[in-house]
Parts: sequence; C-alpha cells; structure tokens
Amino acid sequence: MMKNIAIIGAGAVGSILLHLISNDKSLNIDIFATNNRDINLQIDNKKISLPYKTQMLKESSKKYDVIFITTKAYTLKDIIPYIDNITHPETTIIICQNGYSQTERITHPNTFHAVVYISGQKKDDIVIYFRDNQLVLPNNAHTKKLQSIFLNTDLDITISDDYLQQIWFKLLVNLGINSMTALTKNTAQVLKVEEVNQVLNQLLKEGIKVANKDGLTFNDDTIDEILNIYNGYPDHMGTSMYYDVQENALTEFEFIQGYIYTRARHHQLNTPILDIVYALLKGYQYNR
Amino acid sequence: MMKNIAIIGAGAVGSILLHLISNDKSLNIDIFATNNRDINLQIDNKKISLPYKTQMLKESSKKYDVIFITTKAYTLKDIIPYIDNITHPETTIIICQNGYSQTERITHPNTFHAVVYISGQKKDDIVIYFRDNQLVLPNNAHTKKLQSIFLNTDLDITISDDYLQQIWFKLLVNLGINSMTALTKNTAQVLKVEEVNQVLNQLLKEGIKVANKDGLTFNDDTIDEILNIYNGYPDHMGTSMYYDVQENALTEFEFIQGYIYTRARHHQLNTPILDIVYALLKGYQYNR
Repeated sequence: MMKNIAIIGAGAVGSILLHLISNDKSLNIDIFATNNRDINLQIDNKKISLPYKTQMLKESSKKYDVIFITTKAYTLKDIIPYIDNITHPETTIIICQNGYSQTERITHPNTFHAVVYISGQKKDDIVIYFRDNQLVLPNNAHTKKLQSIFLNTDLDITISDDYLQQIWFKLLVNLGINSMTALTKNTAQVLKVEEVNQVLNQLLKEGIKVANKDGLTFNDDTIDEILNIYNGYPDHMGTSMYYDVQENALTEFEFIQGYIYTRARHHQLNTPILDIVYALLKGYQYNR
Repeated sequence: MMKNIAIIGAGAVGSILLHLISNDKSLNIDIFATNNRDINLQIDNKKISLPYKTQMLKESSKKYDVIFITTKAYTLKDIIPYIDNITHPETTIIICQNGYSQTERITHPNTFHAVVYISGQKKDDIVIYFRDNQLVLPNNAHTKKLQSIFLNTDLDITISDDYLQQIWFKLLVNLGINSMTALTKNTAQVLKVEEVNQVLNQLLKEGIKVANKDGLTFNDDTIDEILNIYNGYPDHMGTSMYYDVQENALTEFEFIQGYIYTRARHHQLNTPILDIVYALLKGYQYNR
C-alpha cells in the first residue's frame, strides 16, 4: 500500500530528507513550509530542482503514515495545534531537530526523536547538501516498521540499542561548541583562547555529570572524544547557534542547554558554568 | 601665558570636551583624530559646528601643556609612540577613557586617569551631547594646577579625596551592566530575566571582593546602590560594550573586566563568574 509521508519544514534537513527519499516512487510525499515555494538543492556544485512544491500546514487535512518534523526546535509550539488534523492512530512522528525533550510536548503516541546526521546549509533559496544521510532511532516495533518503509531510499534509518547515549553525546557536543561560539560571537577558532578552553572543559564536565545522573555512562574519555571532534573543525566554521546570534535570530538554547539545565535542577546538581551559560542564552532570547 | 591644549580623539567625549573648553579664548586648543575633518555637535536638537578641524597625531611635533586622551581604551597602544613628540617635562596627561590601568602604560610622569562624567553619542558625523561635564581627578599639585587652567571654562574638574573609590565605583557599574548587555546582546531590559539578575549579583559581589582586597571600602549597600542605578535605565538603553558587540567592533573589556580580573589573580581570589565573563569577552575579541 502507498505510504503517505509528510515532511514539515523545508530548510536544510527537510529539503535534504526529501531528496533522500523521493527516489522511491511508492512513497507519496508532501513537504510543508510557511509559504508555497520550490525546493532547490546544490550537491557537489550542481543545482537540482526537486519536482515538489511546499504546501502550508494550516491548509492540510490529509492523514499521513509518517511525519518528519524538521523545523527549528522553537517553532514546535506553532506546529503542535495542526498535528491532530494530519495524523491517524498509527501515524509515526519523527522529530528531526536539535536538542531533546520535544517528544514530551507532543501528545500523539509513536513520536520519536531522531539523532540527525545530515549536514547542509540553507542560503537564500537554495539548500547546500554537504554530507551524511542518517537518522538514529530507539529500538522498538514502530521504528522497525519505519525502517522497512524507507528501505528502498537513500535515507539510512539506524536503530540503535544505545540510542539515548547517542542523543546525549550529540547534546554534549552541541552544549560545548554552540555555547562557546554563540556567547563569544566567534567561530571555532575561539577554542584557541586558553580561558575559553578552560570554561569549555568545565562545561562539558558538568554536562557529563548531568547525563550520568540521568542514567547515561560517559567518562573523561568522552571529553577527549568531544574535544577531538572540535579539533577537526576549520577555524572559521560557525555553529547553528553562532549563525543565529550573528543574524539576531532566536536560538534553540531551550532544547539544548535548557534541557540539560532542567535535568541538572531536577537532580539538584551543582552546575555553576552551565547556569551562567543558560542565563546568558536566556537573556539573549528575551524579548527577541 | 597662553596654554597649549591637545585633545586626542574626536569621538563623543573628545568633541564635547572641546565644546566645553573652547569658550576660553586664552586656551590654544588642537584636536586630533585619524583623519582631517570638522567637529559637529548636536545640543538640545540644535546643530553646532565648532571652528576647529581635526589634525593627525603623526604629523604633530608641537608641545602641549595639557593632553586629554579620549579615544577608545584599546587604541592607547597606537597613541603611546607619539606621546614623546608632543610633551615637555611639565605636560599633564589626562586619560579620559573607560576602565583603569592605562596610566601604567604611559611612561610620561604627571599622567592621571579621570573618572569621566560626560554623556554623549557619536552618530555618523555628528556627536549628540546628552549631559554632564565633569572629570574627577586625584588630589595633588598637578591636578590642582590643571583645575586652575580650566577655571574659566564649562568643564568641571573636580578634585576628590576619595578618587580611587570613585574610579572603582564606575568600574563596578560598568562591570555589571556592560558584561550582561554585551554577552546577551540585549539592552538593559535583560536584567528582568531572573537568571541574568542572579549572575549579575554574583558578578558584582566578586567585583567588590576584588576592590576591597585592593584597599577600597565597598559593602552590600554598594550593590543596592548600583542596582538602583540600573533600575533607572530605560528598557532599550544599550551600553558602550553592547553597541560594540552589535557592530562587531572591538570592546574595552581588557580595561574593565580585564583589569578587575588581573587584580583578582594578583590577590589569588576565587572569582568564578568574573572568570567566565572575562573568558567569553576575550573570546569575542580574539582575531577580531
């Protein structure tokens, strides 16, 4: 039976996701944005126009078997009111956003948060696809069914038994580099400043303390592993939160630093660096 | 005898200073900038063109009796090489910049750092003069002589026996509000965010700890006094460091937060919040 697939959001991840699954003609795919427009990708310096036009969520009442939510995390509250219109009881919803805790805000069952390994950047009307094509999901009957739906596409759905460990690892990577680049308004080169490096190390230690109290199993090797990833960054590489701050746009701090901060408070942990980072990012967002 | 006066820097403070002293025709005043241009002021919505043109320091060898340095603090290193060309042994140099510690960098004797109470803003080619006309200086023979030179001008040179307390009070005021607005890229309204307010309070407490170890006498009332000043700020008021960050320009962090940080290290004090604030501002400045 033909499957109905919705992609909500036509930014970098949404557009690339469409590109990855649209080769399977047995899938009936709709993509949603805040206006009606074309989808253009640039892959290896070649421009590709996908044969789809974005639709608007508020005008849709079609029921979908799978819904990917790929918008910025802070827009979730604007999407939630429309979810009931486009789901049936067996719909699977996959959150493809930075951070964590979004699934708690959606009442529909079968909602899962993917660890997204898809790298691209939207510039004006075109999405540049850099690399990777993977969504990592927890191991259950729903995600296994989901995996089978996309078996004939270029999208790699990996089911992982240490899914939560992967979610948190990505959270920790983002906690460090997004916080430092956003708060210094500087690119990855900022880690060369000794004092920044010290703050970063303390911040990662606090993040790991929170994660482990939440049942995860990270250690000092994790910090080395994360620092090693940062070492691979080119000097002038920005992060999503760095670009947000450069453009005076909202950040996803509530779902990254804010989530870890909330877990720290829940466990009554002492996290002085995280507290300041959270305060400053919350101050940035205030009245913006 | 006719006195030769130099004003280095034709931004807000330099231009207003010129306006305040130029009514005394017994003073021979030159004003220096990085290019040759006119000086325009706006006072009570009325535009005034002063009958002076800026000169360039590198082209000058005239000896001055009084030199006011009014540029941004971080440009001091570019000015110092020219100081010997324009001074005689009895020249008095007055630093009119934010922060502290600049006098240590100038080898010429009779160099004093004023607490500047002059409020204005440079916008394109015009300086808007808001209010105040006071320089506070320490009590000594040189500053008393200086006071007498400007007796017939609109510049109020106040000699204070608790000068250092006033320097540090202004440092503390700037430490709090400049740090919070620059690091959140938000205006004075950001103090309404509870978490920001908490960080601010801790930061001020650390600042007072450093000041008192340096021989000053502040207490908890000082914090109330400073918070009271902040409470008088309009929501959308920025600070100099906020505007610097908005414009991707260098900040004077080295002379405000950096000076207090250096004193904290000197006294081996534990100042965790100050350390992070300093690290982030240093990260901002890196390679900019």
